[in-house]
Amino acid sequence: MLAALREQVLHANRELSRRGLARFTFGNASAIDRAAGRIVIKPSGVPYDELTSEMMVVTDLEGRMVEGKLRPSSDLPTHAALYRAFAGTGGIVHTHSHYATVWAQAGREIPCLGTTHADHFHGPVPITEPMADHAIAGEYEANTGGAIVARFAGLDPKAMPAVLVAGHASFCWESSVAAAVETASILEEVAEMAYHTIVLNAEAAEISAALLDRHFLRKHGSEAYYGQRPST
Amino acid sequence: MLAALREQVLHANRELSRRGLARFTFGNASAIDRAAGRIVIKPSGVPYDELTSEMMVVTDLEGRMVEGKLRPSSDLPTHAALYRAFAGTGGIVHTHSHYATVWAQAGREIPCLGTTHADHFHGPVPITEPMADHAIAGEYEANTGGAIVARFAGLDPKAMPAVLVAGHASFCWESSVAAAVETASILEEVAEMAYHTIVLNAEAAEISAALLDRHFLRKHGSEAYYGQRPST
Amino acid sequence: MLAALREQVLHANRELSRRGLARFTFGNASAIDRAAGRIVIKPSGVPYDELTSEMMVVTDLEGRMVEGKLRPSSDLPTHAALYRAFAGTGGIVHTHSHYATVWAQAGREIPCLGTTHADHFHGPVPITEPMADHAIAGEYEANTGGAIVARFAGLDPKAMPAVLVAGHASFCWESSVAAAVETASILEEVAEMAYHTIVLNAEAAEISAALLDRHFLRKHGSEAYYGQRPST
Amino acid sequence: MLAALREQVLHANRELSRRGLARFTFGNASAIDRAAGRIVIKPSGVPYDELTSEMMVVTDLEGRMVEGKLRPSSDLPTHAALYRAFAGTGGIVHTHSHYATVWAQAGREIPCLGTTHADHFHGPVPITEPMADHAIAGEYEANTGGAIVARFAGLDPKAMPAVLVAGHASFCWESSVAAAVETASILEEVAEMAYHTIVLNAEAAEISAALLDRHFLRKHGSEAYYGQRPST
Repeated sequence: MLAALREQVLHANRELSRRGLARFTFGNASAIDRAAGRIVIKPSGVPYDELTSEMMVVTDLEGRMVEGKLRPSSDLPTHAALYRAFAGTGGIVHTHSHYATVWAQAGREIPCLGTTHADHFHGPVPITEPMADHAIAGEYEANTGGAIVARFAGLDPKAMPAVLVAGHASFCWESSVAAAVETASILEEVAEMAYHTIVLNAEAAEISAALLDRHFLRKHGSEAYYGQRPST
Repeated sequence: MLAALREQVLHANRELSRRGLARFTFGNASAIDRAAGRIVIKPSGVPYDELTSEMMVVTDLEGRMVEGKLRPSSDLPTHAALYRAFAGTGGIVHTHSHYATVWAQAGREIPCLGTTHADHFHGPVPITEPMADHAIAGEYEANTGGAIVARFAGLDPKAMPAVLVAGHASFCWESSVAAAVETASILEEVAEMAYHTIVLNAEAAEISAALLDRHFLRKHGSEAYYGQRPST
Repeated sequence: MLAALREQVLHANRELSRRGLARFTFGNASAIDRAAGRIVIKPSGVPYDELTSEMMVVTDLEGRMVEGKLRPSSDLPTHAALYRAFAGTGGIVHTHSHYATVWAQAGREIPCLGTTHADHFHGPVPITEPMADHAIAGEYEANTGGAIVARFAGLDPKAMPAVLVAGHASFCWESSVAAAVETASILEEVAEMAYHTIVLNAEAAEISAALLDRHFLRKHGSEAYYGQRPST
Repeated sequence: MLAALREQVLHANRELSRRGLARFTFGNASAIDRAAGRIVIKPSGVPYDELTSEMMVVTDLEGRMVEGKLRPSSDLPTHAALYRAFAGTGGIVHTHSHYATVWAQAGREIPCLGTTHADHFHGPVPITEPMADHAIAGEYEANTGGAIVARFAGLDPKAMPAVLVAGHASFCWESSVAAAVETASILEEVAEMAYHTIVLNAEAAEISAALLDRHFLRKHGSEAYYGQRPST
């Protein structure tokens, strides 16, 4: 089973590059086998087109190496913290995709300005608090995970499968790593639309709660009627 | 004849994707056979590169299924409302193309700032009023069509074959679905030009009525002298 | 000899499309044989990938048809006016390339903000006055040429081989039509750089006259020392 | 050994074009053999796809021709000044890449707004003072090098391997010319991110010194723990 997961993680990392979400080596994807208690993640600093499934690193949920000859992504402790906190999560993607990173650098959440956004994220995409110096000096990557989890107090990570880390970039999560890649792609599209909207009209209003719910629930949950999934 | 129309609708939907107007599954195209009283439309949520002509859904003008195994696009009631209201329309395209959507999200019509715009649209591209909560909670997609038709009171849908739905995206229509795809492409180009113009100069003036008419009528109507069409 | 010129004009028109300077049919290129008193120009409204050298239209310097079965570009009278007024011009290109058009729509000349600009254009790229209603209602395309020529009073068209027509787009000219295509490409690059510069810093200063001259004269004239051309 | 260096310089120049950092002939790359006291640089004005290793020009550290039939890049005196002043430098790249040039034209250093920047540049990317008329009229390209060196008083060129020349464009340097190309690519990415960030939020704050150090030192120096390099 980890063989299959390694392939999924390999494919997801390559997709980050192929879709233009991660240039250079700015991004990484992981998946979890919750039954086995294992995380599979990209090795650190290896170019996407040189990756093989054997290079993938396997760790436990505390981020301790179990299998692999290469160092794991330096962001592993952030991934691990999210897997521990967000129960239904099967895969996580971290990228410095352009416009999502721009919002993170600007220190602003992404407001929900249209139905493209509402189809995928149930409200504004949140941003973490800037990290304190001692948190940066300490277990920095683990503390990044902690800042995300703290920001999600009162939020449902299933209805909001993405976050901006202030001054840094984005993380996305879904039930599978393939779905997390798709969400990262859509986050980038939504971030770019919101960017141009705010530059054109700094006073642009968020859509109404009624429209947000209508579009989000058209695609998610038991009343969904978009697509070919059987409604139940 | 519906076989031919299915092929046209299939081709138009693929073009939306190929031209970059509809990423993911954000867009749909339809056509009408007015003699037969039938609409042919994309099925909901199917990726563009998996579409076949057999998957196209056939309905009557009220949007009731006549043929097809898949659910029609959830936006079908909007298409149907436009076919009923705009007599000469043969095809309709809905996309979340980037810059047209940005204007829709910004809540602004697209002003006519140059001759590229005037060559194709006879005046500013209008935007609908935001929809009331009860209209969203009710027959939302049909009410979207109603909002467009209401906005076109006093406007000629032949001289203005496009609209922005506030907080959502654009719809375009023409005598054929292939022509509607072309208009959606030009709308996106014009929307991007207008975006950059207004960001560069927030006070940029619309072109004069004389210039608007000159360019629009150079390409449209009985006095047209652009292209190789015989003037009559 | 006109056979060679037809090929050059065909190639130049295709280049406009290939380089992304002219989308749809928004642009045209022409060349002149001054000894023969003949202009060769694209036919109106024909897609770039369907053009053949036989389709090119041949006219005299007043724009009267001499050879060809298709209508010439509707902008022919503008080209003809420029050939008559700017003695050394061998080829002319008109495009709605994105950022040059944005400056034309914004009603602003392109300021000389850096050495990329100074390497190619000796000062800000000028913009015409908006045309009066009677000029638009009359011989519109010829009057467009007149507005350009009027704007160049006191300017040297060899040191400034481009212009913006207010609310419309750009024209470029050089000693050959191939060179005019290259200049149109560089104009677009310079226009985009200037756009982003002004959006980033609305008060950005033009470069000094000393720097403008240094860069322009490094590439042009008898003291040029850029490239492999023998200095004389 | 110069044969190998010629190949590296050839490859680097082609990469500038292939990566979209240098359009037309707007850019050049060089390398140095310090033992031999030789600089290898692109010839002036030759299109990137016509370059061969034999065309590369070899000079001494004062920029005097040693080998080659073609004129060297007109920017050679700037390269030579940097090689003399920055001891560890093995390769230099000059490009007019879009967003780095935009910051240079805007007359602003690139602030450090996020960790993508901090991973590669240890602080804001500096900009030179505008050059005085007499410096432009004199040995312009050598004086450009002088302006860069003057700006680096108190800065470590290893921790800050890039500069903006006001009103002009950027230079990057590294221990090899291949690494300098990579740095020029990352500079362009960082410049674009910073551009969009400042347009979205003109008051966006630079990241903290703690975060800057953490990210820069995660990748550089003896405590680095990013990638697969053995830590020492």
